[in-house]
Amino acid sequence: MNQTPEWELHPMLVREALPVGDLALSRLLAARDAGYPWLMLVPRRVGVSEIFELGVAEQAALIGEISQVSMALKALTNCDKINVGNIGIVVPQLHVHVVARHRGDPAWPRGMWGAAPPKAYEPGVLEKFVEDMRKALNLK
Amino acid sequence: MNQTPEWELHPMLVREALPVGDLALSRLLAARDAGYPWLMLVPRRVGVSEIFELGVAEQAALIGEISQVSMALKALTNCDKINVGNIGIVVPQLHVHVVARHRGDPAWPRGMWGAAPPKAYEPGVLEKFVEDMRKALNLK
Repeated sequence: MNQTPEWELHPMLVREALPVGDLALSRLLAARDAGYPWLMLVPRRVGVSEIFELGVAEQAALIGEISQVSMALKALTNCDKINVGNIGIVVPQLHVHVVARHRGDPAWPRGMWGAAPPKAYEPGVLEKFVEDMRKALNLK
Repeated sequence: MNQTPEWELHPMLVREALPVGDLALSRLLAARDAGYPWLMLVPRRVGVSEIFELGVAEQAALIGEISQVSMALKALTNCDKINVGNIGIVVPQLHVHVVARHRGDPAWPRGMWGAAPPKAYEPGVLEKFVEDMRKALNLK
């Protein structure tokens, strides 16, 4: 029997981020990098690496979730700019970064991807950020 | 009389890219950087810096254009991954990068934003790329 494989979060994303919760399409994660308030949206679809591999309705859902998460992140952090991006070379499972940028942050005004190694969070700080994002997005 | 200002391409984008053509929402540009086949989508909307500042239908149009352009770029370049991103700190006018990545390119496997200064094209090469993209997308 052919069985559709179940979606599972890529092991590198399990290691490098904490789960925030599930939106309609995507799992929302918070990256273990204290350099920036850094979220990731991972559509719960098997075998998808590129945005164009999603269906049209899923693409619309994804950009809706990007917007929803961006607005909540901006309200929470009072950041100067939201950065959004999909690189996906090291981790092939489609994931979209949504990152709060502040004037004078380590990579300002450039992209923060690969600009510096991840910085460790002080105990409890990432967990507090995850809790604040859950509240902002009404996630359990 | 209040007049709605007309949309104009940001002067830095005029300098740093060649126009490919206009899709329904966005102007498509090709960046003057021979390091990567590098396109940009610029929604023709005044005063928009963040994806969430577009209306819901415009957001869906934007991700549709990202997909359309990504597929054409992948078919043309036979790349290994498409990178998509909005940073928008130096140039505040909303623009989304759509870049063809090849195994072993200068920034592989990291993001190419800020990884190296732009590399000059040999004469005619960028113009040929623009022409090929126009054909692939049925643009005049």
